[in-house]
Amino acid sequence: MKAIVNVHLKKGVLDPQGKAVHHALENLGFKNVEDVRIGKQILIELKAQSVEEAEKEVKEMADRLLANPVIENYTVEILQ
Amino acid sequence: MKAIVNVHLKKGVLDPQGKAVHHALENLGFKNVEDVRIGKQILIELKAQSVEEAEKEVKEMADRLLANPVIENYTVEILQ
Repeated sequence: MKAIVNVHLKKGVLDPQGKAVHHALENLGFKNVEDVRIGKQILIELKAQSVEEAEKEVKEMADRLLANPVIENYTVEILQ
Repeated sequence: MKAIVNVHLKKGVLDPQGKAVHHALENLGFKNVEDVRIGKQILIELKAQSVEEAEKEVKEMADRLLANPVIENYTVEILQ
């Protein structure tokens, strides 16, 4: 089974990487950009009996390792 | 308009960050993980007249700055 975990900084947390990319895009002539935020997308292949079991396990991975709950939010999507 | 750009290393390109996370998950007791790949998810807010225009502009951003075409693939999704 395949899981997609998207991890992003919470609203209000400064995103210097996003700011740098925003600035670089403006310097390249892209004037219509209003905001850029950069996060991680983690693809996990795992063995699981069901979607529910996979989701539970991947959420535990996110809580324990993949995301920092103080400054980051995450979403989990399971593909079969 | 909002655009989501997902950037991942191409198949066959070594992903040491993914390997490290895979190893860390195993050490935490997650034994069902078969593979981990880590990419970037870039969220862009931009002004555009249409979805087509936004998609064209964001693809150009990806080609010129956001992705390295030698080792990375990307996908673009436009949300209204």
